[in-house]
Amino acid sequence: MAKLNENFLNLKKNYLFIEIGKRVKNYAEQNPDKPLIRMGIGDVTQPLAPIVVEAMKKACDEMAVKETFRGYEDSGAGYEFLRKAISEYYKSFGVDVSADIIRISDGAKSDCGNIVDIFGHGNTVLITDPAYPVYVDTNIMNGNKVIFADSNEENGFAAMPDENVKADLIYLCSPNNPTGSVYTKEQLEKWVAYALKNKAIIIYDTAYEAFISDPSIPRSIYAIDGAKKCAIEIASLSKKAGFTGVRCGYTVVPEELMVYAEDGSAHSVAQLWGRRQGSKFNGVSYPVQRGAEAVFTEEGLKQTNQAIEYYMENAKIMRETFDKLGIKYTGGHNSPYIWFKAPNNMDSWELFDYLIENIQVVGTPGAGFGKNGDGWFRLTAFGSKENTIEAMKRLEKLFS
Amino acid sequence: MAKLNENFLNLKKNYLFIEIGKRVKNYAEQNPDKPLIRMGIGDVTQPLAPIVVEAMKKACDEMAVKETFRGYEDSGAGYEFLRKAISEYYKSFGVDVSADIIRISDGAKSDCGNIVDIFGHGNTVLITDPAYPVYVDTNIMNGNKVIFADSNEENGFAAMPDENVKADLIYLCSPNNPTGSVYTKEQLEKWVAYALKNKAIIIYDTAYEAFISDPSIPRSIYAIDGAKKCAIEIASLSKKAGFTGVRCGYTVVPEELMVYAEDGSAHSVAQLWGRRQGSKFNGVSYPVQRGAEAVFTEEGLKQTNQAIEYYMENAKIMRETFDKLGIKYTGGHNSPYIWFKAPNNMDSWELFDYLIENIQVVGTPGAGFGKNGDGWFRLTAFGSKENTIEAMKRLEKLFS
Repeated sequence: MAKLNENFLNLKKNYLFIEIGKRVKNYAEQNPDKPLIRMGIGDVTQPLAPIVVEAMKKACDEMAVKETFRGYEDSGAGYEFLRKAISEYYKSFGVDVSADIIRISDGAKSDCGNIVDIFGHGNTVLITDPAYPVYVDTNIMNGNKVIFADSNEENGFAAMPDENVKADLIYLCSPNNPTGSVYTKEQLEKWVAYALKNKAIIIYDTAYEAFISDPSIPRSIYAIDGAKKCAIEIASLSKKAGFTGVRCGYTVVPEELMVYAEDGSAHSVAQLWGRRQGSKFNGVSYPVQRGAEAVFTEEGLKQTNQAIEYYMENAKIMRETFDKLGIKYTGGHNSPYIWFKAPNNMDSWELFDYLIENIQVVGTPGAGFGKNGDGWFRLTAFGSKENTIEAMKRLEKLFS
Repeated sequence: MAKLNENFLNLKKNYLFIEIGKRVKNYAEQNPDKPLIRMGIGDVTQPLAPIVVEAMKKACDEMAVKETFRGYEDSGAGYEFLRKAISEYYKSFGVDVSADIIRISDGAKSDCGNIVDIFGHGNTVLITDPAYPVYVDTNIMNGNKVIFADSNEENGFAAMPDENVKADLIYLCSPNNPTGSVYTKEQLEKWVAYALKNKAIIIYDTAYEAFISDPSIPRSIYAIDGAKKCAIEIASLSKKAGFTGVRCGYTVVPEELMVYAEDGSAHSVAQLWGRRQGSKFNGVSYPVQRGAEAVFTEEGLKQTNQAIEYYMENAKIMRETFDKLGIKYTGGHNSPYIWFKAPNNMDSWELFDYLIENIQVVGTPGAGFGKNGDGWFRLTAFGSKENTIEAMKRLEKLFS
């Protein structure tokens, strides 16, 4: 008799965005005359950069001709042309990440979920709360023990390590989804020191790195001394270059990074990850890898930065509204997210329904990201400028 | 202290194709004047069909324009246009698979490995031997109990169920990799009857379905009555349409399919799989899905079948050589693989080195696929016609 992985029964019934989708669909069906402004799910809306599209099309043409056709990629780690381009990109902000410690993937969500495979169930997994639900759900699926570090109003939604808590795996995300907060160099140094002391591994999610404009904020965990001995970095082109529908990301696993067996022996995380990917993954589409390569050219960065500037202009419009209303928020600087405190003591889901009902704006209830998210709410800057202006006008009127 | 998943220590040290790659590299470096004919790894060599390339390029152009740009795919299960096209394809050979039980993936290898997540460790996993190494390795990584069903010379390398063996999960692959054998309808009926009786689930790998030309051989497990209650089907466009470097496959999980908790309660496999994919996967590249859609059009099937016919002409050339030499083999009909008995009582790896050394032909040692593979050897029909003819000429001379 086929038996299920009973850990799945411990998952919350509905994935956050599925629940939102249902409520939005209900409202839209009952109110076809009231179009919704969607500032909820963090999807981009600006098209791909022309240089990316051209690179992908050229690669498609190569696939049409026997002499230039490409089948399986030998290494499975991603083509060297792309891994080198990413390594150069790291160099551009002063971080040394060599091409051979980068593995290309079909996105940060896949790597975030799949990396869990290589760690044993004996680990205590520390996740900041609130957090991207994938960290918690994938660890629950695997039967791991999850504990939380509070990100809250008091610490500016930037949880810090507690010497009295022993964690073996630590998920950090900066700029943070959902709170838009960013870790400073000094804060990350404390996390690295904690990890090194505890032989813990930090899984560092840099999906929103491209939104950092302040040069003092680290764009990579490897900007911190010692991080190569204690951190994996997972990155994405989804928000950086509008790849949410193209699918490409990468994960950095330094050679120095070790994980331990029960007998105390040290094992290379990079080798384990390579073995996992070698058996359960067959590389990323060649045209997609060529498109990704184009992102990291000088012209590619220039073109993709235009979209980022467009979104950050939206973030500014949102910040100004919340400033004017005197509503507390984090994010909106170095981040496409605005995370604000629900007015009038509403809880997150109450505010969600209230905003749809009254001003037809869809956001994301903070409670969906963890207990510290309740009473808070996430809006994204990924919409159009027109919609952002309109939504803020309505919001201002509603809460004035 | 971060602890590894100790199951990884139970894996054999080298993945088969990595070991082959090393030996090939060594020979090539020491013998730069003797070019190798590669008939080992099962990669295709014919380019993509023109209709596929055009569809992908058109989708890239859509991504360049705000109005037609696509970000995240809402369902994560794959666009309906592709799922419907695949459903119609099933219909073309008389099998009813509706679009809503199909999930699109980046390839059969990913799905094969990832589906293991949803099953508990209490399962006994039955794998035919020899088999595609991914079945065994991914189950070992997960700590599952693996047992084997012998495919050997006596049963024509088509293992059948044994009433005395209790299995909960069963991996079958037809046309088979590596042996090229195919299950008849009657044989599959026996497997389905066994699975239904034991409430077991068959994981049916149809990666080579497109090579079936004999209309009496099932192209899908769902050609068998009752299979929807006991089987998952994993399919790939890699060999069917040359997508090894494009990356697209799909997995069918019928609504009727149940898996059981320890308390005896039944749970929907489709829901568990949806939840797994929802948390660890974000869909397939939009241009890739448009390319895949084109494969299943009338013109697309015509164009991709040209490559299949080309490969099957190679298979015929190979069969004729082995027939002439009187060397026993399976496959080469309804399959791009020829699986032959090593002459002169050589073991698989001896023959591997012998063929490289004497006729510069690279194949795949049968031993790499399981104990019943030892003394056997796999060649593929995926090369060029010229190389296939040349390799067979050399082989004939060597063993005459």
